[in-house]
Amino acid sequence: MAALFFGQMRFDPKNPSHEDNDRFVLSKGHAAPVLYAAWAEAGVIDSAQLASLRRIDSDLEGHPTPRLPFVDVATGSLGQGICAAIGIALNARRIKSLYRTYALLGDGESAEGSVWEAAQTATRFGLDNLCAIIDVNGLGQSQVTQYGHDMAAYEHRWRAFGWNAIVVDGHDLAALLDAFEEAAQTTGRPSMVLARTLKGKGISFVEGRDGWHGKPLKGDDLERAVRELEGQIGPEATNPAIPAPPSREVHKTLPEVGPVQLPDYEMGRMVATREAYGAVLAALGTADPRVVVLDADVKNSTFSDAFEQLHPDRFYQTYIAEQVMVGAALGLASRGAIPFPSTFACFLTRAADFIRMGGIGNANVKLAGSHAGVSIGEDGPSQMALEDLGMMRAVPGCVVLYPCDGVSAAKLVIAAATHNGMTYMRTSRPKTPVIYAASEEFTIGGSKVLRESAADIATVVGAGVTVFEALAAHDDLREEGVNVRVIDAYSVQPIDESTLVRSALATGGHLITVEDHYAPGGLGDAVSDAVAPYGITVERLAVREVPRSGPSAELLDRFGISSRQIATAVRDRN
Amino acid sequence: MAALFFGQMRFDPKNPSHEDNDRFVLSKGHAAPVLYAAWAEAGVIDSAQLASLRRIDSDLEGHPTPRLPFVDVATGSLGQGICAAIGIALNARRIKSLYRTYALLGDGESAEGSVWEAAQTATRFGLDNLCAIIDVNGLGQSQVTQYGHDMAAYEHRWRAFGWNAIVVDGHDLAALLDAFEEAAQTTGRPSMVLARTLKGKGISFVEGRDGWHGKPLKGDDLERAVRELEGQIGPEATNPAIPAPPSREVHKTLPEVGPVQLPDYEMGRMVATREAYGAVLAALGTADPRVVVLDADVKNSTFSDAFEQLHPDRFYQTYIAEQVMVGAALGLASRGAIPFPSTFACFLTRAADFIRMGGIGNANVKLAGSHAGVSIGEDGPSQMALEDLGMMRAVPGCVVLYPCDGVSAAKLVIAAATHNGMTYMRTSRPKTPVIYAASEEFTIGGSKVLRESAADIATVVGAGVTVFEALAAHDDLREEGVNVRVIDAYSVQPIDESTLVRSALATGGHLITVEDHYAPGGLGDAVSDAVAPYGITVERLAVREVPRSGPSAELLDRFGISSRQIATAVRDRN
Repeated sequence: MAALFFGQMRFDPKNPSHEDNDRFVLSKGHAAPVLYAAWAEAGVIDSAQLASLRRIDSDLEGHPTPRLPFVDVATGSLGQGICAAIGIALNARRIKSLYRTYALLGDGESAEGSVWEAAQTATRFGLDNLCAIIDVNGLGQSQVTQYGHDMAAYEHRWRAFGWNAIVVDGHDLAALLDAFEEAAQTTGRPSMVLARTLKGKGISFVEGRDGWHGKPLKGDDLERAVRELEGQIGPEATNPAIPAPPSREVHKTLPEVGPVQLPDYEMGRMVATREAYGAVLAALGTADPRVVVLDADVKNSTFSDAFEQLHPDRFYQTYIAEQVMVGAALGLASRGAIPFPSTFACFLTRAADFIRMGGIGNANVKLAGSHAGVSIGEDGPSQMALEDLGMMRAVPGCVVLYPCDGVSAAKLVIAAATHNGMTYMRTSRPKTPVIYAASEEFTIGGSKVLRESAADIATVVGAGVTVFEALAAHDDLREEGVNVRVIDAYSVQPIDESTLVRSALATGGHLITVEDHYAPGGLGDAVSDAVAPYGITVERLAVREVPRSGPSAELLDRFGISSRQIATAVRDRN
Repeated sequence: MAALFFGQMRFDPKNPSHEDNDRFVLSKGHAAPVLYAAWAEAGVIDSAQLASLRRIDSDLEGHPTPRLPFVDVATGSLGQGICAAIGIALNARRIKSLYRTYALLGDGESAEGSVWEAAQTATRFGLDNLCAIIDVNGLGQSQVTQYGHDMAAYEHRWRAFGWNAIVVDGHDLAALLDAFEEAAQTTGRPSMVLARTLKGKGISFVEGRDGWHGKPLKGDDLERAVRELEGQIGPEATNPAIPAPPSREVHKTLPEVGPVQLPDYEMGRMVATREAYGAVLAALGTADPRVVVLDADVKNSTFSDAFEQLHPDRFYQTYIAEQVMVGAALGLASRGAIPFPSTFACFLTRAADFIRMGGIGNANVKLAGSHAGVSIGEDGPSQMALEDLGMMRAVPGCVVLYPCDGVSAAKLVIAAATHNGMTYMRTSRPKTPVIYAASEEFTIGGSKVLRESAADIATVVGAGVTVFEALAAHDDLREEGVNVRVIDAYSVQPIDESTLVRSALATGGHLITVEDHYAPGGLGDAVSDAVAPYGITVERLAVREVPRSGPSAELLDRFGISSRQIATAVRDRN
């Protein structure tokens, strides 16, 4: 940390978020105290503030969060910071800045698969503006790490993955500075400084010993440790001046954002929401240079390939590695890009922990998941997202959108792009008819009442493919002389509480929800949570067992969410 | 597939689940048709049945599921089968069988970080009874893979990770058989057969060309392809006899399961539920030799180290690699072990996709997550599980348990171990007083009414740490002359519907839930879904914003789930 902050990095301590500052990500977030100490030494925070560590009124939390101006992404779940650092390094290219990105990892941390996703991805992109460091102290939380101090084990693996691996004594400042300089001079590939260290170096009764992980020194131990360390400090030197961030000539104003050319879908046309997603994403990329897209080798299914065709330089292919796809998006977002990572919605669960961590900083990432629910059909349960609404709703403040047709999908992509914070859009595989006019407006927190009459005896709330099941049930019931209200709850979070309450109170004080999703955490739970204070109950039609392969329509019926089951639920209330 | 099934593997085709059969995992699950064809050729399924592929009435689904007797684990989310194969290979050691485990991966698939978690773990355990194969056809779903046909790129990486890597022409049967034999003779480390192939080999207009992924041949194309392939088939040979599974002398009856010696916790003693979890796990291991434990370097926090001390041979350390920890557990469970993988509950989200896939087969895995909720205190949001109940409830049929004290935790570990199917136990960091007598019974689907009187005007439902907040609120309110019922909903899924309904109807037709968890998918949603049909509404006290570091009690209050807020909610109803 001393070598990096006061011998290598270029930054403006008065402005930790300067867009050309060299960036530092503490991937081993549990070492937060040394991060805070470094920034205090650099003058960004007051040294006296350090004593507020982990207090409820302090932003110096147990692990770093973006509440602090010098923290780009929350860390503390291991193997994530290195993925974010890739996004930060890619961003330097996007804005044509010469800043370098540094990331410090633990050795235990490098057991995470996401670290190897990062390893292959940084090589693939030739990120020579990225330098990572592994603190090889040989001790994990509970025991000696996998490879202990076997530096060759690390070196072989990183070299095989294409990195410039440099082994150094992590307590030798000159060797570290040489390594950082070698990294800065290396072109075409990222560098990894493998620093052999001893935990607790310089404290005789702690150095290199197991059992001290996360334990503060207290009382006599503390006094003795401080005494021993003070005995090793040379005469006080003035810190060398920190070099200013690299300058650049490009114009540094906010990018110009033009109008987005939306696709022109006439009413009744059959369009899958995933197709509309791709089409508008491509147009959005033309209008706004901050928009970037990430894919995990399914661009021809999510239709994000439409963006790639127009904007190949802002399209990042991470191959089948969803963790680094989302992690890089978190890094890109932290530096001003507007990233849209997309894959099958079920495979976003692969990055659930990254999404969770992104949520801690309300990262400005626009997630999209296609192939939602049993409506995908024959590919079977492994490809069906049935828990994604719950996963995304469990991110506080995350906007969750679930359009049913091409027009609403297109407009909601724009709503997501212009919202400040994390959003998720769920798209569907089957083509569905366009039911909204091009002039229709869609807002975060809104809904559409699609069928309404004074004679309605029940309200059915759908979203996505179930909107069409609800409309069909409406038509079937009307032939029996039964009128039901139908709502398209395209904004699942926040949900349109007032419309739901008004409709429920007008139709018997009860709501029927229907969703192509398991019951926990989905549309029904969202609606129920919102309307419970008004004494309104919610009957949830949802998938309640593991589905199987089969034709889409047969699956909707077999798993309880077809127009037939909606009509039955209405009749049972009647 | 031909070389493996009819030239290498030893198995009893009449009994695909024979415990000594060599095992095969199709990690690239999208190639399901070749798996079904191989088993048809082996005589396990009728060839005529193959035409039922992907139909709703057929078990030959789009991707393999354990509905089929020859499928151990569901695949179709890439990078998981290889992790399960590690568990299957470890199981051979556990039951002292000589069976070998094979896993077939795609080349695109090897971009998944979980593959590299598997790579390091198999080496660490020296699994020379494991042989994986990568089908290097160079084409992903949407484009050429990362390394195309650069066989050296694969070879370097696998060698660096300690595997015996063998590069072969994947269309050369003799070379494949030699490679499998070399793998079988290699000791001390796993083998990886890197098979260079061409997609669509032998069909002139498909071979090696992009754009055919997942596309069936139709009409003239189909006829031409069949004609071309038939022209390449030599004279029909009789399949060689498949070698019988390796025999062994060990006694093959069900293991003897003895009584479990539960820890003796007197009422009022302060015990964290995670401590009770560890203590009873160790005792369970003594009673039942099928019980195994997996850890991701937090055994001293989850207390699973108590098991390691008594049963080191059945304790598997995967280091900080949660995906392979859960994946290996799925494999172990598929072959008769009862695995308990545990880590911090928040880090189970790292394996969310593995849990999802395990749920497709209702795997007999006993997950446990410690450090739930804001009650962990100063470590901050990155270490707090606030979505785990929702994630686990979204696995159909998964039992979700959340004990509040040492006695209930101990008894529920036994309930989980003896239940057939996936279970999840949520444990807490803080010590809490023992409130149940050692004689108390706890059942899956049960609950405990802790406070009850005829004068109750409201019912508060808690679980885990919030049970104590509810009890404190009860005491505070009683001083004001207000009586409330208090329920400990220790079984979150299935939930005790009848007790909840009875209590709600006796106390105003309404329930107040309180949970150390975000609102979506948690206790409140579980309760609401269960009682909605009875016209009962649920007010949910839950964490609704990203928390922060601080003392446990201050966090409970600040984020809305303390005794003070419960009392306020009761008064507001009154």
